[in-house]
Amino acid sequence: MDESKLKEGSCKYHMIGGDGPNSYAQNSEYQKQLLVSAEELIHELIDKHLDLENPPFDPQNTFKIADFGCSIGPNAFFAIENIIAAIVNKYKSNQNKNPNHPIPEFQIFFNDLVDNDFNTLFTNLPTARKYFVAGVPGSFHGRLFPKSTLHFAHCSTALHWLSRVPEAVAKRGSTAWNKGKIHYSGAGEEVKEAYAGQYREDMEVFLNARGEELVDGGLMVLVLIGFRDGVLCSDSSIGGVFDILISCLQDVANMGKISEEKVDSFNLPFYYPSPSELKGLIEANGLFNIERMAELGAPMRRNPDAQVLTSHLRAVIEGLIEEQFGDGIVEELFTIYLERFAKSPALLDDRCWKETNYFVFLKRKPSFPIGESLL
Amino acid sequence: MDESKLKEGSCKYHMIGGDGPNSYAQNSEYQKQLLVSAEELIHELIDKHLDLENPPFDPQNTFKIADFGCSIGPNAFFAIENIIAAIVNKYKSNQNKNPNHPIPEFQIFFNDLVDNDFNTLFTNLPTARKYFVAGVPGSFHGRLFPKSTLHFAHCSTALHWLSRVPEAVAKRGSTAWNKGKIHYSGAGEEVKEAYAGQYREDMEVFLNARGEELVDGGLMVLVLIGFRDGVLCSDSSIGGVFDILISCLQDVANMGKISEEKVDSFNLPFYYPSPSELKGLIEANGLFNIERMAELGAPMRRNPDAQVLTSHLRAVIEGLIEEQFGDGIVEELFTIYLERFAKSPALLDDRCWKETNYFVFLKRKPSFPIGESLL
Repeated sequence: MDESKLKEGSCKYHMIGGDGPNSYAQNSEYQKQLLVSAEELIHELIDKHLDLENPPFDPQNTFKIADFGCSIGPNAFFAIENIIAAIVNKYKSNQNKNPNHPIPEFQIFFNDLVDNDFNTLFTNLPTARKYFVAGVPGSFHGRLFPKSTLHFAHCSTALHWLSRVPEAVAKRGSTAWNKGKIHYSGAGEEVKEAYAGQYREDMEVFLNARGEELVDGGLMVLVLIGFRDGVLCSDSSIGGVFDILISCLQDVANMGKISEEKVDSFNLPFYYPSPSELKGLIEANGLFNIERMAELGAPMRRNPDAQVLTSHLRAVIEGLIEEQFGDGIVEELFTIYLERFAKSPALLDDRCWKETNYFVFLKRKPSFPIGESLL
Repeated sequence: MDESKLKEGSCKYHMIGGDGPNSYAQNSEYQKQLLVSAEELIHELIDKHLDLENPPFDPQNTFKIADFGCSIGPNAFFAIENIIAAIVNKYKSNQNKNPNHPIPEFQIFFNDLVDNDFNTLFTNLPTARKYFVAGVPGSFHGRLFPKSTLHFAHCSTALHWLSRVPEAVAKRGSTAWNKGKIHYSGAGEEVKEAYAGQYREDMEVFLNARGEELVDGGLMVLVLIGFRDGVLCSDSSIGGVFDILISCLQDVANMGKISEEKVDSFNLPFYYPSPSELKGLIEANGLFNIERMAELGAPMRRNPDAQVLTSHLRAVIEGLIEEQFGDGIVEELFTIYLERFAKSPALLDDRCWKETNYFVFLKRKPSFPIGESLL
């Protein structure tokens, strides 16, 4: 819990707050549609894998759910209500077998970075909710909850955020120095490997932390963006978006409004794993059983709209731009970006959208494998 | 959990956020000094009344503490760290008897109204803290936590806030209509009784909610402002402060900047119980044993400074003023207030400070008295 270290690495790693036209709240329909497409899977898998005869799920206890990387709603509320509905269904159907097993109370923890706009999150909470609420500030790349206090963890379209840009990438003279680029997309092997190394490290920390926080038999849903094995980021719409962004930054540098050096040292802290890479990391960690991995639908890829997609990008990365370049260039940068994006027909073409959304359903293994505690 | 009702009643019932010169953070030294004066009592009483052999205090569980009405720090952090230190002492001294009884992890819940500035609270969290954190938005005049999930509750200088101004007081034609005044201080018996009735109702709700949330044997510290039996609010510095405030509001109304009607319908939602009144309410509620009631010191009463006390009042009630009159008069009102306050020597006199700070230490009675669960 060394917050000073966290802050240093992540002070602008948050979505745009408030409720205005540039806010994440107004520009996260894509993420919402992903949650819609995961809705049924969540019902099916909770019904199958939530083990109500396991002591940590005693309904005398509160059922505790955390959403990691919640941002400011309303998507987080939608996701949580779907999970609660599935859990309540499970308890209800169990009551036929065991009538003394009442539906528990729910306590929901909404987590995001310290700089997340929790004020807006709390103001927007659904008024008719049937659960108790708490907000938890801090990076999910680290422990946020006491040992064995969560029953269910949820993390949607957040795990592509690295805890930091890998050091070597921004370091002049390093073999992985990423001059002239802002991401591993289209960069050399060393850059890709530096990013992949950071992702491995971050996922290990994430899984260990959640492994400690979840009860034995606790469940976790991850929704994340990645590429099918063999697909390169540079061939995708994400790669295309980053190419346009770097060209716009260079334009702003050419106007003399920001320094070349700042552009050279700017890199986006995003990583998009393939399914086999992700599976490998979860298995190597060893704390969770993978109960299901599935591809989700691809929302908003038909007839994508340049304005909508530009606003979406801005809501996500404006904080990073401000942190590196100050707030003086944001308006201009995204004005240029919108023009250029609209003139890139390839990016508006379906074939360009090669990234995929993955759904992963995990179950915390028992801390003591059966029998071991008897030795 | 009907938030719409809560919001209606309490949307500006919060301290001034941020870190600026008018913020509560910069103007709550009085409250801080109260916590300092309660420090030793808390150590002594936790040592005496925290029963580590009681199953809900099993150190395998997290030890959960909530601060009700936390505002935005730093006082809340100070209070919590003192409580944790006292609890850790108790566990340590217990380890001599029972070495297998380790110190638990701590999870701290900081509660205040939805409109509290949680962003500032989270940003200001101590970096070297040894506890997990969550923020809980909502009125403490109602349930905020699942059943039996807290071990310790703390509420300091917050319980004089009523959940709302008693209806009759602001109602033209009611026998309790409080025309020309903004509080029961100096008002007729009906007004005082309307306020007292609201306080009784609110305390009953508060105690019932905390009674459900705390485990059996759970502890609660209340620090609150009141008057010794027989002392009238109108004879005190609080009464004097309100007299000046109403005269300033009338001045602003005479300038034509706010309407007389708005002044007439404005009433402060504060109530200051006497110790016997408070004791009576806790005993009538019946869920808690009163382990100790004590008077606390009277910080900042020597040589009070008009500017400091004006800033303090402003940090507390600016939200209420804005809610009733808009934000256009705040600067002017407090400029007039400061002038007039500085010219009121009686208020700067020690003899005027007749209100007292009470410390109350409560213990949750067992839900099932010993033996009853065996019937």
